[in-house]
Amino acid sequence: MDLADCYFKVRRRTEEICAPLQTEDYVVQPTVDVSPPKWHIGHTTWFFETFILKPYFMGYQEFDPNYNYVFNSYYETVGTRVIRTDRGNLSRPTVLDIQRYRKYVDDAMENFLLCNPIGDDVRELLVLGFNHEEQHQELLMTDIKYILGNNPLFPVYSPTYVKPKAIASDSNEWVEMGEGVYEIGFTGEGFSFDNELNRHKVYLNEYSISPTLVTNAEYLEFINAGGYHDFRHWHAAGWDWVNTNKAEAPMYWHNIDGQWHQYTYHGLELLHLHDEVCHISYYEAYAYASWKGMRLSTEFEWEAAATRFSWGNRWEWTESAYLPYPGFAKAPGAIGEYNGKFMVGQKVLRGASEATPPDHSRITYRNFFQPELRWQFTGIRLAK
Amino acid sequence: MDLADCYFKVRRRTEEICAPLQTEDYVVQPTVDVSPPKWHIGHTTWFFETFILKPYFMGYQEFDPNYNYVFNSYYETVGTRVIRTDRGNLSRPTVLDIQRYRKYVDDAMENFLLCNPIGDDVRELLVLGFNHEEQHQELLMTDIKYILGNNPLFPVYSPTYVKPKAIASDSNEWVEMGEGVYEIGFTGEGFSFDNELNRHKVYLNEYSISPTLVTNAEYLEFINAGGYHDFRHWHAAGWDWVNTNKAEAPMYWHNIDGQWHQYTYHGLELLHLHDEVCHISYYEAYAYASWKGMRLSTEFEWEAAATRFSWGNRWEWTESAYLPYPGFAKAPGAIGEYNGKFMVGQKVLRGASEATPPDHSRITYRNFFQPELRWQFTGIRLAK
Amino acid sequence: MDLADCYFKVRRRTEEICAPLQTEDYVVQPTVDVSPPKWHIGHTTWFFETFILKPYFMGYQEFDPNYNYVFNSYYETVGTRVIRTDRGNLSRPTVLDIQRYRKYVDDAMENFLLCNPIGDDVRELLVLGFNHEEQHQELLMTDIKYILGNNPLFPVYSPTYVKPKAIASDSNEWVEMGEGVYEIGFTGEGFSFDNELNRHKVYLNEYSISPTLVTNAEYLEFINAGGYHDFRHWHAAGWDWVNTNKAEAPMYWHNIDGQWHQYTYHGLELLHLHDEVCHISYYEAYAYASWKGMRLSTEFEWEAAATRFSWGNRWEWTESAYLPYPGFAKAPGAIGEYNGKFMVGQKVLRGASEATPPDHSRITYRNFFQPELRWQFTGIRLAK
Amino acid sequence: MDLADCYFKVRRRTEEICAPLQTEDYVVQPTVDVSPPKWHIGHTTWFFETFILKPYFMGYQEFDPNYNYVFNSYYETVGTRVIRTDRGNLSRPTVLDIQRYRKYVDDAMENFLLCNPIGDDVRELLVLGFNHEEQHQELLMTDIKYILGNNPLFPVYSPTYVKPKAIASDSNEWVEMGEGVYEIGFTGEGFSFDNELNRHKVYLNEYSISPTLVTNAEYLEFINAGGYHDFRHWHAAGWDWVNTNKAEAPMYWHNIDGQWHQYTYHGLELLHLHDEVCHISYYEAYAYASWKGMRLSTEFEWEAAATRFSWGNRWEWTESAYLPYPGFAKAPGAIGEYNGKFMVGQKVLRGASEATPPDHSRITYRNFFQPELRWQFTGIRLAK
Repeated sequence: MDLADCYFKVRRRTEEICAPLQTEDYVVQPTVDVSPPKWHIGHTTWFFETFILKPYFMGYQEFDPNYNYVFNSYYETVGTRVIRTDRGNLSRPTVLDIQRYRKYVDDAMENFLLCNPIGDDVRELLVLGFNHEEQHQELLMTDIKYILGNNPLFPVYSPTYVKPKAIASDSNEWVEMGEGVYEIGFTGEGFSFDNELNRHKVYLNEYSISPTLVTNAEYLEFINAGGYHDFRHWHAAGWDWVNTNKAEAPMYWHNIDGQWHQYTYHGLELLHLHDEVCHISYYEAYAYASWKGMRLSTEFEWEAAATRFSWGNRWEWTESAYLPYPGFAKAPGAIGEYNGKFMVGQKVLRGASEATPPDHSRITYRNFFQPELRWQFTGIRLAK
Repeated sequence: MDLADCYFKVRRRTEEICAPLQTEDYVVQPTVDVSPPKWHIGHTTWFFETFILKPYFMGYQEFDPNYNYVFNSYYETVGTRVIRTDRGNLSRPTVLDIQRYRKYVDDAMENFLLCNPIGDDVRELLVLGFNHEEQHQELLMTDIKYILGNNPLFPVYSPTYVKPKAIASDSNEWVEMGEGVYEIGFTGEGFSFDNELNRHKVYLNEYSISPTLVTNAEYLEFINAGGYHDFRHWHAAGWDWVNTNKAEAPMYWHNIDGQWHQYTYHGLELLHLHDEVCHISYYEAYAYASWKGMRLSTEFEWEAAATRFSWGNRWEWTESAYLPYPGFAKAPGAIGEYNGKFMVGQKVLRGASEATPPDHSRITYRNFFQPELRWQFTGIRLAK
Repeated sequence: MDLADCYFKVRRRTEEICAPLQTEDYVVQPTVDVSPPKWHIGHTTWFFETFILKPYFMGYQEFDPNYNYVFNSYYETVGTRVIRTDRGNLSRPTVLDIQRYRKYVDDAMENFLLCNPIGDDVRELLVLGFNHEEQHQELLMTDIKYILGNNPLFPVYSPTYVKPKAIASDSNEWVEMGEGVYEIGFTGEGFSFDNELNRHKVYLNEYSISPTLVTNAEYLEFINAGGYHDFRHWHAAGWDWVNTNKAEAPMYWHNIDGQWHQYTYHGLELLHLHDEVCHISYYEAYAYASWKGMRLSTEFEWEAAATRFSWGNRWEWTESAYLPYPGFAKAPGAIGEYNGKFMVGQKVLRGASEATPPDHSRITYRNFFQPELRWQFTGIRLAK
Repeated sequence: MDLADCYFKVRRRTEEICAPLQTEDYVVQPTVDVSPPKWHIGHTTWFFETFILKPYFMGYQEFDPNYNYVFNSYYETVGTRVIRTDRGNLSRPTVLDIQRYRKYVDDAMENFLLCNPIGDDVRELLVLGFNHEEQHQELLMTDIKYILGNNPLFPVYSPTYVKPKAIASDSNEWVEMGEGVYEIGFTGEGFSFDNELNRHKVYLNEYSISPTLVTNAEYLEFINAGGYHDFRHWHAAGWDWVNTNKAEAPMYWHNIDGQWHQYTYHGLELLHLHDEVCHISYYEAYAYASWKGMRLSTEFEWEAAATRFSWGNRWEWTESAYLPYPGFAKAPGAIGEYNGKFMVGQKVLRGASEATPPDHSRITYRNFFQPELRWQFTGIRLAK
C-alpha cells in the first residue's frame, strides 16, 4: 500500500471510531487523563500540519494560527498551548470547525503526497504520524468509554461493537523459560518507536509465565477474600491509593443490589465472569499477584516468552519501570519529546488491548502509564 | 397577562438567549460557578416538573426518572444529585434530549394551566418558577460570557447584542440623606423573594451616595496608581486573593501590547472608557473605594436613596453581609432551601445589571455572592 | 496604677500562663490558627519594641534585627515575616533566647517608663500594647489547650486550674426587649478598640433573649436527635463543613465506649453535663438554634440587653457579620492594620470567656472569627 | 565485639549526634519527610522494645502502652499510629520522657543480652535493629540539617563538625567496562538488607563511568548556562517540578547579593566550589547529565565498577528504578514491611554519604528515594 493509501486508511479509521458519537460527546473531559474526542481529531490533524505540511509543503497556508495553541499536546519545542486540564473547557473550535480543519489538511496532504517526491526523512515522519494517529485511536476508544461510562445515564456507545477475538493460547500449560541471555528490543525493517530500539542482551533467571490472563471470576475471588482490605498485599503507595479512592473493585464495576455489573460499550451489563479482568491499576495487579503468592513478570521475561502464549486483549502491567534501553538517544527537536521525557515514574505495559488498532502491535512494543491509571484496557498475567 | 401567557413568555426568553449558541457551547463548565447552558435549560424545566407537575397535575408521567439526579441544583430535600463540579463532565442528556424534555414539560404545563383551576398555592409556586427561570436567564448570560470569553479564540456571542440603555441620572449631584429611621424591605402586592420580606425599620446616620457608577476610565486610574500592588487599600483576605490570583485588572480585561482590551458579547474590543467598570470582586470594589478615601454604601443606605439615583446596569457591591431580616423564616420543604441556607459568608449586591431580565428588578431586591466572584456584571457606587 | 505597674502586671500574667508548660509545649503549631506559645511571648515583646522602643526611646539598641522577621504577625507595614503556617517549623530562637529577649525589652521599657515623660500618643500605644498582650494571653490559653488536647497522651495543663466563677443570672426569665432605637458602641473614658468606636443608633424590633447559655446536656439532646445528620438545620456552607470534617460533636468531645468525655485543662474527663457547651463553630450554634426553632441574637440585640443577663464564660456567636460601624476609620500606619482589614467573612462574637483576662471585657467588645473555628471558648445564647 | 557491646555502641552514637541540639530542635517537623529528632530517638527505642523485648524477654513490662501509637513508623502489622505529617505536632512525650524511655529499654536490653542465651533468630533481629538505628542516625543528620538550614537564623549545628575524608580515586581516568555478564547483589556472611539479596547475573553493554563526582563548580556552569530554564534537559515530570518549585539551584544554596552561599553544619558559608555538588533531586541529576551529553549509570553498572572508583561522600542517583531482584521475597510479619512495600515509584541511589555511619556502607547497598527529594546528601556521577 502506498503512503497516500496508508494516510487515508488511518485517517478514515479515526472518523469511524467517532461515528457513533453525539456532538456533545466530543466536548467533555471528565478527568485529566481523558481528552475530549474533538481534541484528538484536531491534534492528530495538527501533527501532520505541523511536522509535514508546514516544513515540507512549499506554499502551504496554515489553516488557523490559533490552532497551534489549541491542539499542541505537550511539545514545548512547538510553543505554548492550552493546559491539559483545560481541554474540556473549550467549546470552540466546534466539531464542525475541526472537521473542516481535518478536511483542509487532508486535501493538502493528498496534494502533497501525490504531487511531490517523498524523501526518506518525510517518509519516516509520515509513518510516525500514522502510528501517532493509531495511538490516538486507542485513546479515543478508552476516552469515549470513560466519558460514557461515567455518565449517570450509562449510554451505549454502539450496540454493534464487537470485541476483537482473543488469540487462543496453544496450550493451557504455564510457559517454562530457562536461565540465560535473551535478546530484547526491536530489530528489522518495519516501524518501531524509539523506546524499543537498540536490541540488546539481558540475562534472565529461570521463570514460568501463565499462558492466560486473570479472569473476572478469578479477580472476584480476590475481592471476596477481602483483598482490598488487607494491607499485606499492597505497596505502601498502593495502600494509600486504595484508601484515598476507597477502591473496592476495578473501574466500571458497579455492585447493584448485591450483584456485580460492568459498564461496556453496550451499556451496563452483568459482570462477564469469563472475560479477562480489565481496567485495573498496577497497584491492583501487584496486589492480586501477591495474594496468589506469585508475581508479575518483567517486561524482559514477557518479551522473551511472548511467542509462546496468547496476548492482545489487555495491556499487561509488568513489574518493570519505564526506563531507557542501553544506548537510547532522543531525536533532536520536537520529535525527540515523543518518549524519552516520560521515562521516570511510570510502569511498562506489554501486549496490546481490544482497543489497539490492528497492525499496531508488536512483541517489542513498550506502553507505559502511571501505576494508578485504570482507564486503559489493562489486565494481569501471572509469573513465578 | 394570564399565567399561561406568562409561562410561555418566560420560557421563550430562555430559548432566545441560547439561540446564538453552538451545540458545544451548551456543554462546558470552565469554572465551578459557571454551569453549562444545557444544564440551565434542563434545570429550569425540572423546577416546573418537580414543584408543579409532579405534586399537582394528576396523572402526569415523569419524563425520565434519571433527570432528577441530573438537574437538581442544591435541593437536599429532593434527593441526591450530580455534584456541582461535575456538570461539565456530562455529555448526555444531549441538547436535543433536553429540548425534548423541555417540550414535554411545556406541553404538560400548557394542559395543566389551561385545563385546571389554579389555586393560590400553585399560583405562588408558578410565580416563583417564573422568577427562578429569570434568575437562570441572567446566569445564562453571564455563564455564556464566561464560556466564550475564556476561550482562546474569543468568539462573538452575537454581533447584534445591544446593551440595555442605562437610566440616566436626573442630576450629577451626590445624593444627601439625612439621619433617621428608614423603612427597608418589600411590601405590597407583587412578587418578591422571601429574603426581602418583613419590611422593618433601620436607623441610618447622615450619608451621601454617588449618583453614578465608577467608570472604566476612573478604575484605570486606580490601576495606574498601583492599586493592585498596595496592601493598604485591601482587606487581608482581599490581599491574599490579589496575590494568589495575580489579579491586575477586572475580569475580561486584556493588556495587549500595552493597550487595554475587554471581552464583550461582540468579541475582543478596545476598552470602553466611559462604560461603568464591570466584572470586579467585592475586594476590588472595597479597595477602589478605600483608595478614593470613600466607602461602599450599606444595602440599607442604598435602598433608602435608590429613588434618587439611576441604577440597573451593574450589580453594586454593598458593604452589607447577606443576613436574614428581622423575622425571616424559611418556608417548609424544598422551597425553603431557596435563600436562607446561603445566609453566611456572602455580600449583598443591590440594583440589577444589563443581564437582568426586564421586570425582574426591584428596589428591595437582594442579590448575594461570595466576595471573590467576578463573572456577574458587578460594579461600584461610592458613598461617604 | 501607673503605666509601669500596669506594664509589669500584664507582662507577668503572660509568664504565669506559661509556667506549667514544658519547653516542648512552647514550640509546636498543630493547626494554622494555633501559634506556638514561644511565638506569642516573642510577638508581644516585639510589639513593645517595634511600636514604643524603636520610635520613641532614643538610643535604644534593637535586640536582634532578625526578630522582626520572626515575630511580626501580620503587619505589612512593618515588613516581610515568617508565613503564618511556618511558625511551628522554627526551633530557634529557643524559649531561653526569647526569655532573654523579653527580659531585654522589659528592662528597656522600665528605663523608658521611669525616666521619660510619657506623652499622650505613647500612652495610647502603651494601653493598646497592654490590651494586645491580654488578647494574646487569651490566645495562649486556647492554643495551649489545643496543643495538649490534640496530643494522644491528653496531658494535664494544670491540676490546680480553676475556671473563673460564672456570674449567676439575676433571674431565669427570658429578657424581653421592646422595639425602638438603641445606642450601640463604646463611649467614655477607658480603653476600647477602634472597631467599637462611634457610638451610634440602631433600630431594633421587639425580641427576647435567653438569660443563660446552652448547656452540654441540652446540646447532647441535639446530637442524640440526629442534629449532625439533618441538613435542614444547617447553612449550605455549614452542611459542607459537617460532611468534610465528619463533625459529630463539639471539639474536645470524645465518645469512648459509648460514653462522652471532654478534654479539659485537667485532662480527659467525663462530660460535664451542666457546663455551658463550648468549642463549637458558628455553624453548630446556628444549627442548634434552628433545631430549637429559635435563632441567635444580633450583636446589637446582645449589647442592648447585656446588662440584664449574665455573661462572661463563653464567647457567644451572634448572627452579625463583622462589619465597620458608621464612621469607622482605620488609623494611619501599622496600627491601622489592627482590626479594619479583617472586616469581611467573619462573624461577631460577644461577651467574654473563661480564658479572657480579668478586666479585659466590656459590653461593647467585638470579638470576631471565621464561622468554622472552634478552638476558642465559644458558646450559644438563644434569642427569638 | 559481642552483641551487647554492639548494642551500646550503636545506641551511644545516636545520642552523640543529638548532643549539640537544643530541646526545641528535637520537636519540629518542617516538612513531611523530616521527622523530629525526638521521634527518631523514640522510634529506634520502640524498635527494640517491640521486636526484641516484648516477644523474647519474658516478664518484660512495656514502658508505656501509648508509645506504640506514637513511635510506630509505618508498620501496619503493629497497629495504628500517629500519621506521619503529625509527628511535629506532638510536644509530648517530652525529650526527657523519651530519654527515660530510652534508658528503660537500654537497661532491659542489657539484662536481656547479658542474662539470656541469644538464639539465631533474635541475633538476626538484633543486627537488623543495629542497622535500622544506623539508618536513623543518617536521617537524624539530614533532618537536623533541614531543621536548622531552613530556619531564618541559620544556626550552627556544631562548629567542630568535620566531614569524613573522601576516599581519593586511584586515578582520574574514566573507568572502562567491557560487555558481558556480571554478578549483582549481596553474598557472603555479614549483614545485608533483604533488598540486596539473591545475587544474580545481569548482562551489561560496554560502558564507561566517571571516577569522580560532579563538583559545585561544574554544577554552577550548568546553572549559569541556563540549565534550569531549558526544558530540553528535563523529564516532563522534572520540568513540572522545576516550575512548581521555582527551582534555581540545589537545596541550601542561597544567592545573596549575587554571590552563592550554602548552608552547612557550620552555618551559612560561601559556596565550596571544589566540593561534590549535594542536595539535588534525581530530576536535577538527570538534567545535568543530559546537558553534558552523558547519562547516569544504572545501579548494575555502578555495582560492577564500584571497586574501581572512589565513593562514599554522596548518595549517587542512578537511572535504575527501585525494583525487586529476581527471587525477592518479603519476610513474614512486620519485618516484611521493611523494604518490599516501597518498590514502586522510587529511584535507586548507590554509594553512601558523609552522613552515613561508618561500617554501614556496602557496594551492594540499595538506597531509594522519590525522584524529587533533596534533603539527603545526594550527588551525581556521570556515565556514558
